[in-house]
Amino acid sequence: MVAQAEAVSKQPRQSAEYWRWVAAVGPALVLYWAPLPGLNAQQRHLLAIFTGTILAMMTQPMPVGACAFSAITVLALTNTLPAGRVLSGFANPVTWLIFSAFLFARAVISTGLGLRTAYWITQRFGGHPITLGYSVAASNVVLAPFIPSDTARGGGVLYPITRSLARCFDSEPGPTGGRMGAYLNLVGFHVNYVASATFLTSMAANPMIASFARKIAKVDVTWGTWLLGSSLPALLSLLLVPVLLYWLQPPSIRDTGRARRMAADKLAEMGPMSGREWILVVILFAVMAGWVTSNLHWVSNALVAVSGVTALLLCRIVTWDELLEQRGAWDALVWFAPILMMSDALLETGVVGVLSGALFAPIGAMAVVPAFLLLTGAYFYAHYGFASQTAHATALYPGFLTAAVGAGVPPMVASLALAFLSSLDAGITHYGTGSAPVYFGAGFVSQGTWWRVGFWVSVLNLLIWLGIGPLWWKLVGLW
Amino acid sequence: MVAQAEAVSKQPRQSAEYWRWVAAVGPALVLYWAPLPGLNAQQRHLLAIFTGTILAMMTQPMPVGACAFSAITVLALTNTLPAGRVLSGFANPVTWLIFSAFLFARAVISTGLGLRTAYWITQRFGGHPITLGYSVAASNVVLAPFIPSDTARGGGVLYPITRSLARCFDSEPGPTGGRMGAYLNLVGFHVNYVASATFLTSMAANPMIASFARKIAKVDVTWGTWLLGSSLPALLSLLLVPVLLYWLQPPSIRDTGRARRMAADKLAEMGPMSGREWILVVILFAVMAGWVTSNLHWVSNALVAVSGVTALLLCRIVTWDELLEQRGAWDALVWFAPILMMSDALLETGVVGVLSGALFAPIGAMAVVPAFLLLTGAYFYAHYGFASQTAHATALYPGFLTAAVGAGVPPMVASLALAFLSSLDAGITHYGTGSAPVYFGAGFVSQGTWWRVGFWVSVLNLLIWLGIGPLWWKLVGLW
Repeated sequence: MVAQAEAVSKQPRQSAEYWRWVAAVGPALVLYWAPLPGLNAQQRHLLAIFTGTILAMMTQPMPVGACAFSAITVLALTNTLPAGRVLSGFANPVTWLIFSAFLFARAVISTGLGLRTAYWITQRFGGHPITLGYSVAASNVVLAPFIPSDTARGGGVLYPITRSLARCFDSEPGPTGGRMGAYLNLVGFHVNYVASATFLTSMAANPMIASFARKIAKVDVTWGTWLLGSSLPALLSLLLVPVLLYWLQPPSIRDTGRARRMAADKLAEMGPMSGREWILVVILFAVMAGWVTSNLHWVSNALVAVSGVTALLLCRIVTWDELLEQRGAWDALVWFAPILMMSDALLETGVVGVLSGALFAPIGAMAVVPAFLLLTGAYFYAHYGFASQTAHATALYPGFLTAAVGAGVPPMVASLALAFLSSLDAGITHYGTGSAPVYFGAGFVSQGTWWRVGFWVSVLNLLIWLGIGPLWWKLVGLW
Repeated sequence: MVAQAEAVSKQPRQSAEYWRWVAAVGPALVLYWAPLPGLNAQQRHLLAIFTGTILAMMTQPMPVGACAFSAITVLALTNTLPAGRVLSGFANPVTWLIFSAFLFARAVISTGLGLRTAYWITQRFGGHPITLGYSVAASNVVLAPFIPSDTARGGGVLYPITRSLARCFDSEPGPTGGRMGAYLNLVGFHVNYVASATFLTSMAANPMIASFARKIAKVDVTWGTWLLGSSLPALLSLLLVPVLLYWLQPPSIRDTGRARRMAADKLAEMGPMSGREWILVVILFAVMAGWVTSNLHWVSNALVAVSGVTALLLCRIVTWDELLEQRGAWDALVWFAPILMMSDALLETGVVGVLSGALFAPIGAMAVVPAFLLLTGAYFYAHYGFASQTAHATALYPGFLTAAVGAGVPPMVASLALAFLSSLDAGITHYGTGSAPVYFGAGFVSQGTWWRVGFWVSVLNLLIWLGIGPLWWKLVGLW
């Protein structure tokens, strides 16, 4: 009886789901059987299963992890890849770097350190709407190295704070939204993905992107290299985006004293920092030191992260039981490992080279600068068609990077530009990344305004990251 | 405030924990620095970290998974093994076979299929105390291929049933225990680990043991080989152990009609089999067919299991969310992968060969049969010192197998005998495996009786598995 009742409650929404399956599996089946010039059967099968997986990640007939797990099975059962190879993603250090970062996020959020940091910055610097916006931005950036998900950072820590700040000014979605809420809502959203672009560990797909860059463009993008490349452009974005938003969506209230007082009250309520928070701060600083100095020692970024998790366990900041309950971390593990493995296999078997050569043949004849702008622009605005940064980066980054390097763009410039745009493209829609529906769903801003603002912010970001970025990377010797 | 309250509630039991650490880390530190004849520095470091991990699994200053995760970190940070190698256990198909088996267990238990099977068998065959015991045994064996943990099988499914059956006869721990409860309690416990010995997938360490056998004795122990080897001895154990227990702990009630009626009532209460249960039955039969026929096709046991999990996901018998909540499966993943990797590394670097050669030198001079009996007997009764079958098998199986093969025991005989004893040794104490504290803790039997009964059952099992076993394996052509 129990089992039956369960069965009924779990009846899927049959018809909608059916179409999701068709949209994912249909193209995969066609690719699997249709002869493609330049690809042999094994390459075609691999491409077909990869395409089906990426489409399934977008249409989601099942959760993303279940799609990835199924992809492993299909790859092995069709003998497209040997069984040992399909599991290799689980032994990839990149997978465990991502897994570890999810546990840092857990520790930062569960100890209250994340909230405390944001309140402290707000109380200290939130004296004007723009500096209040900067406070949100600064909080985001401080937490970003250890929270590799803009959904966790935005939804889990900073979105609730921007809502509370708006409430200080009696600004709710609707007529009072213009007082402060709409402005803070937009700032919160747009600085969030800029923070994702800033650190190797602030977005789950970033370590994967760095490993693509290593394999395709032969450039070593460590944690430190990434930050060196992002530092000036990120600073400019975080300084200018809140100003642009202030101009596009001006708050009618200018005195933000109430927000500072609320933050001070919250801090008082939290009391002094606990011993666990102090230990966590020490561990996180040690981890970051290990990352920043990675060219001075032999300990890889992933091993630094895994050591940090071990320290969290030894100091009981996160217990083993809590770790086992981190569904997000396990989900990422089972989701990323197959994707990484498939992307690697596509590269190694030459599929990316063949496809990129065929699709981007006209680019090869162009001058370097127009080719660079065309490729990066196309890569960026292709995100109007994606609901996930990881799906976008997995599907397009290797091909676009191959094309850019082929067109003569310096490998490091191509790698970094496309890497940063993989996060920055999240701002153009209300579905482009996990935090977008959270902020948009608050209801402060209409969809038209959201897209219009998103477009102008994207222009500013592209000017900064594509215009000033390469000059900065030249200046600091990255190319 | 919240964080502080949490910190207080999580204060560990400091002093007891301190000694657990000393007991695990102390010997490891000594081994790490003390020169051992025949081992170079890397081998010694590997042995030290492995020993520390096994000791930590026994003293448990942290949960087993946290110990294994820390071991990975220490191995990599001390440069004992390269970072790529320490993660290799996560790409080992054996790890995913174990992981998959945990998800089968989840499906069998959560759909109610496990309970239904046990009630059906009891209602059908439970006409006398001994056949009631056989019903418990048969239920255990039917579920065993898909529940790779005697704790889950015993504690999760069958222990509650034996308690309910005892209750039918108003037999509770204490004066009324002798009516039926004590007998059923002992039967439930002793048939449980016999079922663990019966299938490759009925105990979590079995697949690991099979992979040791492949590497050390060069024999291919597939799912089918394992079952062929265990079939007759398991049948004899399951027939004779309940009879021996009937003699050692005779129940005073002989008419078991009430137990059959209770089972019938429970079945009526459950109603007819749900669609989900039917689908699950089909998937489980398909998986078992894939395992049994593995010498007829190229799909490995692990790939069959992973395909089964994919089928469970596609048919929504287990949803992705439920899978993410399977702490036992994640725990096994993070626990087994490092252990497997370290055991492999000990074998590959020759540490097992050196140690086994040094410790078992006198055995080499003995005749084959006494050497076989001495090694298997020592391996078996060494379990008085272990609280975990996996810790025992991981620490001792490779060395004892190397010694047995070195002493001239036919490789398949040595591999299978030690493999089966790795489960059968669980019966001698009240702490020898996860289900032991559950059954013992019910309080039907005193500790003295528990050990005395355990000893006599062990004698019977050794006579069957070491006396008749090798003859049977010869008869069916395994050696």
